[in-house]
Amino acid sequence: MRAARFYDQKDIRIEDIDEPVLQPGTGAIDVAWCGICGTDLHEYLEGPIFVPPAGHPHPISGESAPVTLGHEFSGTITALGEGVTDLEVGENVVVEPYIIADDVDTSQGQPYHLSKDMNFIGLGGRGGGLSEKIVVQRRWVHPIGEIPLDEAALIEPLSVGHHAFVRSGAKAGQVAIVGGAGPIGLLTAAVLKAEGLTVYISELSEARKAKARETGVADQVFDPREGDVADKVRELTGGRGADVGFECSSVPVVLDMLLDAVRPAGTIVNVSIWGHKPQVDMPKLVLKEIDLRGTIGYASDHPDTIELVRSGKIDLSKFITGRIGLDELISQGFDQLINNNEHHVKIIVDPRA
Amino acid sequence: MRAARFYDQKDIRIEDIDEPVLQPGTGAIDVAWCGICGTDLHEYLEGPIFVPPAGHPHPISGESAPVTLGHEFSGTITALGEGVTDLEVGENVVVEPYIIADDVDTSQGQPYHLSKDMNFIGLGGRGGGLSEKIVVQRRWVHPIGEIPLDEAALIEPLSVGHHAFVRSGAKAGQVAIVGGAGPIGLLTAAVLKAEGLTVYISELSEARKAKARETGVADQVFDPREGDVADKVRELTGGRGADVGFECSSVPVVLDMLLDAVRPAGTIVNVSIWGHKPQVDMPKLVLKEIDLRGTIGYASDHPDTIELVRSGKIDLSKFITGRIGLDELISQGFDQLINNNEHHVKIIVDPRA
Repeated sequence: MRAARFYDQKDIRIEDIDEPVLQPGTGAIDVAWCGICGTDLHEYLEGPIFVPPAGHPHPISGESAPVTLGHEFSGTITALGEGVTDLEVGENVVVEPYIIADDVDTSQGQPYHLSKDMNFIGLGGRGGGLSEKIVVQRRWVHPIGEIPLDEAALIEPLSVGHHAFVRSGAKAGQVAIVGGAGPIGLLTAAVLKAEGLTVYISELSEARKAKARETGVADQVFDPREGDVADKVRELTGGRGADVGFECSSVPVVLDMLLDAVRPAGTIVNVSIWGHKPQVDMPKLVLKEIDLRGTIGYASDHPDTIELVRSGKIDLSKFITGRIGLDELISQGFDQLINNNEHHVKIIVDPRA
Repeated sequence: MRAARFYDQKDIRIEDIDEPVLQPGTGAIDVAWCGICGTDLHEYLEGPIFVPPAGHPHPISGESAPVTLGHEFSGTITALGEGVTDLEVGENVVVEPYIIADDVDTSQGQPYHLSKDMNFIGLGGRGGGLSEKIVVQRRWVHPIGEIPLDEAALIEPLSVGHHAFVRSGAKAGQVAIVGGAGPIGLLTAAVLKAEGLTVYISELSEARKAKARETGVADQVFDPREGDVADKVRELTGGRGADVGFECSSVPVVLDMLLDAVRPAGTIVNVSIWGHKPQVDMPKLVLKEIDLRGTIGYASDHPDTIELVRSGKIDLSKFITGRIGLDELISQGFDQLINNNEHHVKIIVDPRA
């Protein structure tokens, strides 16, 4: 079968590899669509980061580069291994793409995503969505019902936004300010809106501001060049400030703005990945008793996230900005996202095309 | 009566001023003892900070420099204003020294300490504990029963530690690491120990390490020069890390250590006051899903704090390292704390001596 394999920085190859073999406790999936994630771009441009370098096998998967890429994918069950009785051949599914030690408790409410040596399917081994087929442990397979398979490829990044929402403790009726309208900012805003919050977004890019408006995920979109965003949030909240803030830009001035824009005793969830240690306005965090919370990945978020899409509260089709085949992965996928980043939310790949 | 009055930076004068006048809804207190706080030192060395400068009256108190200093004090009720029926003349009390607008809800659970223009009695006006007498609104007066009046002067800073404990969400049986064993670090540790946590302290100063050991507030005291503190905490917790961390030093490497030493999904409470915006290891905060929480002052903490002392769970006498009269305030108080800081926890002042 064909697969996109990461060998090293700037070295991703589309090649023919053996099909994965069904094992007890697993399901075999024909991949339908796989999104390209910012993490994939980072691996390509600056990696290996999550990918175990050649000769340094991952402690759980036992694999190292080359590995198959792709962790945002949907597909159809084609076969079920021994002992798997609660899925059906022909059922459409998405995968929660974790590589986690077998003895870690992955039941509801457990922080299994923070366990030792956690990595991701499609980065740390165990195949990936940028190939025609994959075999996945039962516990990571989530049925999606009637959700279209192209939209379902976006459930993984939407789960990141859902987990950020859960981490925030935000409730319906509250006010959120999201800093940054890249893919994760937009999808986080989509969850917040679906959960009944008033959502404001701060963004500089014209293209991203337009996308935030046309997807309907924000009640208002602010451009920080057109006035102090925190002042605007206070104006719109009777002087109070937002209840929750979401840092989705990894830009220090955006984090500063959020510390200013949330109310006393408010919460900020940091969803972005920082490549350095930024200066943080700790005096403000202290004097306003703000909670600044990290969030990474998801844990028991997939069922609720799938339900937000299945019920129609979130329409993921709005966030698909490109559809390509596997041979176009670099030219029409990675290169587009690198050179024309602002105009894309999510490019999805058909590994059979 | 005699009072220590802040005029300006390095200009504190002991002078005779008029006695305060009893008003409806207030209690008149003869001050017994008043502690010197780090905040007082900051005002003296770098202020005015909290003190409203001359000509800029505070919006709630209406006062500006000169103001009477002192916000950590105990005393005895000498008279009660109209409408105050739940205190008695002769009763010993401490004061929760807030200046907060009259219309702010100060009932249990309300974050009244984060209300607009909050300031402190003894900094922002309304008299202070570094004088013989003070008149205070009923809502800020807390009876202390049989607690000795000298020890009771430390209930205010102990309440800061109690509020930090409450903010952390920590529970009996958990493990805490406290960064810094200055007065607030020690008193925070005392609360944690009294609440049933295992407490580790990290501290460089020999004198402060000795104080942490002799007061019994820590199960172990680590010197970061003698090995990686986070490694030691992990060793002692089966590789897991501390449940909660408390930043009581305003030193960036201490905050880094705490981010390393707490477990995944752990909490760090920042108790210290930062004079700048430090670099924060946001990558670690994100990947471990740490909650970094600000804390300032106290809110509805005094009753529980008083009970910790009254019940004997905390012995505040261990933290008193000097007793002086008002005339010695600068020479034996401020100058001692500035030049001989490591050897002192709390110097208390008798405004009648």
